[in-house]
Amino acid sequence: MSNRPIITLTTDFGLSDHFVGTMKGVILGIVPEAEIVDISHSVQPFDVLDGALTLAQAYSYFPERTVHMVVVDPGVGTARRPIVATTDRYHFVGPDNGVLSLVYAREERLHVRHATAEHYFLQPMSNTFHGRDIFSPLAAYIAKGVDPAKFGEEVEDFVRFNAPKPKAVKEHHLRGVVLKIDRFGNLVTNITPEDVPALFQEEPPAFKIMVGKREITEIKATYALGAPGEVFGILGSMGYLEIAANRGAATQILGVGKGSDVNILFEDAAAATNGN
Amino acid sequence: MSNRPIITLTTDFGLSDHFVGTMKGVILGIVPEAEIVDISHSVQPFDVLDGALTLAQAYSYFPERTVHMVVVDPGVGTARRPIVATTDRYHFVGPDNGVLSLVYAREERLHVRHATAEHYFLQPMSNTFHGRDIFSPLAAYIAKGVDPAKFGEEVEDFVRFNAPKPKAVKEHHLRGVVLKIDRFGNLVTNITPEDVPALFQEEPPAFKIMVGKREITEIKATYALGAPGEVFGILGSMGYLEIAANRGAATQILGVGKGSDVNILFEDAAAATNGN
Amino acid sequence: MSNRPIITLTTDFGLSDHFVGTMKGVILGIVPEAEIVDISHSVQPFDVLDGALTLAQAYSYFPERTVHMVVVDPGVGTARRPIVATTDRYHFVGPDNGVLSLVYAREERLHVRHATAEHYFLQPMSNTFHGRDIFSPLAAYIAKGVDPAKFGEEVEDFVRFNAPKPKAVKEHHLRGVVLKIDRFGNLVTNITPEDVPALFQEEPPAFKIMVGKREITEIKATYALGAPGEVFGILGSMGYLEIAANRGAATQILGVGKGSDVNILFEDAAAATNGN
Repeated sequence: MSNRPIITLTTDFGLSDHFVGTMKGVILGIVPEAEIVDISHSVQPFDVLDGALTLAQAYSYFPERTVHMVVVDPGVGTARRPIVATTDRYHFVGPDNGVLSLVYAREERLHVRHATAEHYFLQPMSNTFHGRDIFSPLAAYIAKGVDPAKFGEEVEDFVRFNAPKPKAVKEHHLRGVVLKIDRFGNLVTNITPEDVPALFQEEPPAFKIMVGKREITEIKATYALGAPGEVFGILGSMGYLEIAANRGAATQILGVGKGSDVNILFEDAAAATNGN
Repeated sequence: MSNRPIITLTTDFGLSDHFVGTMKGVILGIVPEAEIVDISHSVQPFDVLDGALTLAQAYSYFPERTVHMVVVDPGVGTARRPIVATTDRYHFVGPDNGVLSLVYAREERLHVRHATAEHYFLQPMSNTFHGRDIFSPLAAYIAKGVDPAKFGEEVEDFVRFNAPKPKAVKEHHLRGVVLKIDRFGNLVTNITPEDVPALFQEEPPAFKIMVGKREITEIKATYALGAPGEVFGILGSMGYLEIAANRGAATQILGVGKGSDVNILFEDAAAATNGN
Repeated sequence: MSNRPIITLTTDFGLSDHFVGTMKGVILGIVPEAEIVDISHSVQPFDVLDGALTLAQAYSYFPERTVHMVVVDPGVGTARRPIVATTDRYHFVGPDNGVLSLVYAREERLHVRHATAEHYFLQPMSNTFHGRDIFSPLAAYIAKGVDPAKFGEEVEDFVRFNAPKPKAVKEHHLRGVVLKIDRFGNLVTNITPEDVPALFQEEPPAFKIMVGKREITEIKATYALGAPGEVFGILGSMGYLEIAANRGAATQILGVGKGSDVNILFEDAAAATNGN
């Protein structure tokens, strides 16, 4: 067994500047044996929901005791609190702005603390880069074995929001939204098999998915089953309905991006029973 | 000596999404002491040849026993086989779609296996992200010391293709192609000194290289020897003829990109004897 | 304590090609226990000052004995010297083209050597990729414990330049420049609180900062204090005056980029006394 603690980073800092490298320097100064893993630094700038989604798609694949640090922090330098959250398997470090909402929603045994013990922070502390001055040291000290209880008191009023859920417009009509466009131009929606089980059963009832100006009437099991230029639905690896094309970018074919409506209509109203 | 096994990653997943981070989580869950190194995640989406070239340029610089994982996989979820290839120095993991062709072409002692032992895969297994569910576990178990023979039977009919080779159009005329544009805007061709030794000898016979609308008549030893705005040939670090500019992007100056023809003409036909 | 040596990389190689992965392979072949950390590979191509700034913002956050390798090297293959610089805390490896200038300016006890011991270099050595063939091996051997004195003689005539400093145009008028645009669209200037202390005192005298066609009259303590669309000054985490917007890109709002003038004018000339 390795005894290297693992720290993951999810931020909107990009890779063009020195930001991420600097944070890694701070972490390694405190816990030189740490293994630091980038989840992504391409969260949309200032987009807390996008950060929450990115973290939620990756964190549970890491080994127990991993420290997940997430910094999407438009309120840096203000009174928003630095937070350390601990679950049965993981620790999480980030600003108290909802970026951990999807973790809160999934994890049952949860302790959230307001980190106030400034002697753990980097000094002098800037007003503009708490990823370096606060969150990196917190993550590093946890990885080093410091008990999170030493950072501050447990709180109950931490900020959380609900990720947008699809809505039943009518009995036979569900409306969701495009959460993000992935690298391949697939439209990742917020619609899961639980929301609309009929869509993913082996022989689904007649349906159409309206996105942009296109009607989609096919769910495929793999990307490669799509004909050239065809746009279809598929159950993506994140557990959401995706709108995709085989070896092509659905976002370009449809001219549709993040935030667009996705309407699912069944011909027979009875088919859409689980739309909530 | 370190006993950290090394795993390299070459994919078309980009760095904007959670994909790469998620795979690293899976790997570290199986082999926490692994050192994971990114070769590149910017392979052109779905471009198996581009993936093969990227891997081929880097893999031989890694220490013995490195596990090289490459995922450019437009056929994910279909019947295309997951492959584990073993040479004297390395292991390779990837889909059986030709992405390992340049490895097959270079390596003499080669064992290629069809990985069928699903109990090594991540469960539940998606149809859309085998980088996470199949290839990462395979690479991790190899790095952990599992004998590749345990994954499945050796096969001989693995998919391979030939990288595009330059062709002799006439006795004094060789035609190649631009394989890729690198970060600096250099045009990396598929033409090597073996294809046209005369071009790289100390005093080459009179020649012209036709790319786009430009005639190039100079081979330089270093980029810095080029005058401002001048476009010239150079033997690049990958062992190919490159069309380059000093502190400038040849691709922009010439308005020429990937896939363009590169014609080399010698005034004296005898000079081009090794054109094949 | 960990005994993993740390090597950082700062280059203009980007992440699209195999370059960075290849260098890591070379390093791990020499010193497999090394921890390699990317500071950034997005230095502007051929821009030695941009490389110097990127390194300067990050290097001092790393633990003692870190080896910092920086490759922004438009003169690759020419007579420009490979350099190894050693300070009390760190080693630095890079081309002798000024990319270490900001290190030289900050560090007092400094030994700079011209690395001539070619038996440490990768063979065969290319003319076009010294990051792979010279600088990676040098960094790796230092990390492995080789005394830099073995690489070559100490030199005094190493290349250095001064980073552009703001200038006093008149008694009440300081002119600086935009050094870079960061990920968030903030304009990072070359103006520090030492250059113009009045600007950052609690109640600054009346001033205006002229950038593009806009007059800025506010310094804020945090980004979040800006109103929507407002452009303001802020002391950034790099210690420079930044021109910023709250949840927006100042560079887009102002239509101003790298290299633009930044003029600070005080109504009362006496206020600007420290402008140099």
